[in-house]
Amino acid sequence: MMTEPMQRATPAASSGMFGARILELADRLATHSEMTGGLTCTYLSPAHRAVAKELQELMQKAGLDTTIDAVGNVIGRYRSVVPGAKALIVGSHYDTVVNAGRYDGRLGILSALVVAEHLQRAGQALPFHLDVIAFAEEEGVRFSAPYIGSSAVAGRLDQTLLQRCDAKGMSLADALQEVGTRLEDIAALARRSQDLIGYLEVHIEQGPVLLDRNLPAGVVTAIAGCARHQVTVHGRAGHAGTVPMALRQDAAAAAAEMVLALERRCNAEPGLVGTVGKLAVPGGAINVIPARCELTLDIRAGEDAVRAAAERDVLAEIARIAARRGVTADVVELSRTPAISCAPRLQALMAQALARAGVEPLHLPSGAGHDAVMFSGLTEIGMLFVRCGNGGISHDPRETVTADDADLGARVLLDIILSLP
Amino acid sequence: MMTEPMQRATPAASSGMFGARILELADRLATHSEMTGGLTCTYLSPAHRAVAKELQELMQKAGLDTTIDAVGNVIGRYRSVVPGAKALIVGSHYDTVVNAGRYDGRLGILSALVVAEHLQRAGQALPFHLDVIAFAEEEGVRFSAPYIGSSAVAGRLDQTLLQRCDAKGMSLADALQEVGTRLEDIAALARRSQDLIGYLEVHIEQGPVLLDRNLPAGVVTAIAGCARHQVTVHGRAGHAGTVPMALRQDAAAAAAEMVLALERRCNAEPGLVGTVGKLAVPGGAINVIPARCELTLDIRAGEDAVRAAAERDVLAEIARIAARRGVTADVVELSRTPAISCAPRLQALMAQALARAGVEPLHLPSGAGHDAVMFSGLTEIGMLFVRCGNGGISHDPRETVTADDADLGARVLLDIILSLP
Repeated sequence: MMTEPMQRATPAASSGMFGARILELADRLATHSEMTGGLTCTYLSPAHRAVAKELQELMQKAGLDTTIDAVGNVIGRYRSVVPGAKALIVGSHYDTVVNAGRYDGRLGILSALVVAEHLQRAGQALPFHLDVIAFAEEEGVRFSAPYIGSSAVAGRLDQTLLQRCDAKGMSLADALQEVGTRLEDIAALARRSQDLIGYLEVHIEQGPVLLDRNLPAGVVTAIAGCARHQVTVHGRAGHAGTVPMALRQDAAAAAAEMVLALERRCNAEPGLVGTVGKLAVPGGAINVIPARCELTLDIRAGEDAVRAAAERDVLAEIARIAARRGVTADVVELSRTPAISCAPRLQALMAQALARAGVEPLHLPSGAGHDAVMFSGLTEIGMLFVRCGNGGISHDPRETVTADDADLGARVLLDIILSLP
Repeated sequence: MMTEPMQRATPAASSGMFGARILELADRLATHSEMTGGLTCTYLSPAHRAVAKELQELMQKAGLDTTIDAVGNVIGRYRSVVPGAKALIVGSHYDTVVNAGRYDGRLGILSALVVAEHLQRAGQALPFHLDVIAFAEEEGVRFSAPYIGSSAVAGRLDQTLLQRCDAKGMSLADALQEVGTRLEDIAALARRSQDLIGYLEVHIEQGPVLLDRNLPAGVVTAIAGCARHQVTVHGRAGHAGTVPMALRQDAAAAAAEMVLALERRCNAEPGLVGTVGKLAVPGGAINVIPARCELTLDIRAGEDAVRAAAERDVLAEIARIAARRGVTADVVELSRTPAISCAPRLQALMAQALARAGVEPLHLPSGAGHDAVMFSGLTEIGMLFVRCGNGGISHDPRETVTADDADLGARVLLDIILSLP
């Protein structure tokens, strides 16, 4: 598609300028919130629409062709000099969880924005359109459905979601119409495979791996698959003083053994994680042997075979524990999503760009889902993780990223964009 | 104190008559309830007062001198033929937990009642007064304070309880005055040591030991001491997908290890029991590594040294688990009550009476507290456990006792009373 060789801009002239601006803009976006004293910005709330407006203005000032689409995505195109060029999407989401950090999602949008600003300043010609997209919805808070923004662009929006209602009983369709959307415009948001050269996303790691390895950024290999189960252990209630240990069928003790069985199995293999996030004896009393204990299992791995083997082993062990203790364990599968691989070509480009920036290119899987998932199968996807401070905490006001790390992330993104054919 | 030899009545003429009557009366008392479809009879409720009235009428018909005292205890005296005789108290409680069984407490009252009815029918002279007491409050439901009835008779009522309020904000003092009590009359309820020859209580076991041993009744050796602790484990929250196993400080996994440490230690020694009745990750989410997990410890043994050693070991193990996992465990002692021994002399009399009834005299501790506790130190106490059906379940509508077992219990009680000097 290229008609003439492109001039390549040098990476950002003054190292550090990207980082300071990204953090300043993240602070500015965080002033729009549904709560006082913290950041909550859920889909189509007034705060959410204010952020969209601010993002559009920033994109306009960067010289991009902007639009807010039918589901609320803010799109800014840095137009290619090549007629009929394909597009590279670089995006992430601007909605947040409740009482969120300021960087989850927004770091990726702002990294793309500052890179576009730089390209504009440098008058850099590109052989493809650079579409900076701020996706309107990824977290799934308001309608208990994630990826509304990216799935629409990827042509994967589940149409039945339009009838799903939020906690106040308003449907997604009504919420969209309230902000002026014509529902029939949504289908047209879908990009075609042949119009795309790829999808890139910078995202805060939301975990401690880079922090632990003392690296500012790393190459994502895959977005882990995830299997979730609900386990309900039924034992037999009894008086805490009157039932000898040998005659008990204690649901909580059985559940405790199951928690540790999951942990032990997942400890045994790198890249595999398992979590019991919910654990409770419903209506428990200090002097009553638990008749019931409920727990959830969340098992993830970058490789589906690794996850499936762990899942099989853990469920078998749960059955053995229940049988040995004379309790029953009802296991219900809640969800199962396969792992999504990042494109080897984009991983290699990222690793080279990191190396050029003097950073050892660590490859790591993403345990969390991201907008990139929606583009898998449609176009090549690549993700760059930026180090998460404060022990790797995320979905929490204590989520942090340093200006230096944000800067490095944007510089690497720029380098990759300039390296793409 | 005896002035002439007493005539001894033979045990109940027709075996089985006691049992049928006890079960019929328990059913009749259970018709008075605060709930529909189940039995709840808490202190000074209309249902509770109806039960008191019915018990007083039953005692009157049995020829006893009756009174309902200032805290609601229903007392019926089968008067001794000996002037200035001391009294033997035989009692238990008529209040219940919420959605209770029909025998907890009431089995002991009704056993004493049918024995008194028999003595009356037989014209049996006794060298002591037999005081059948239906204690008004033992479970502690309404004012979160147990033993209100028996503590008043034992002269141990905590006066500060009078200001304690129920869930509706009514104080115990107001609740008593509402039913016509003059608070200044409470102090006079206290019995003096020199006026008593002992305290006997028949009680459903509330556990599965007798059932497991295929015995209808057994001799209680002691009422177990109990130490209770609240443990709060503080770890570090994290995303279930993004934090590798090795970098986690999972509060729930640590708590699970603590649950099993308690169980393991208590398994190691007969007569020792340990329970985690409450276990919860507050606000847990399926995809979040628990930052906090709360659990309770309830450790009991018939011997204080056994319990104290277990408590020391378990708390030390909890500290080791927390240190190894990089979490903290805040431990708060909630309560500590020493074990109460039953009088060897009364245990021996009960064992002989059981043997005469053809029952192997099993000695077992009580893991639950009973009104008998209040009389410890004031007079000799003795307790007879009657087998609890349905796996030993209690504090539950499924609590059962058979007519045969109830009959045996009452016959043994009669035999003991007739054996007392």
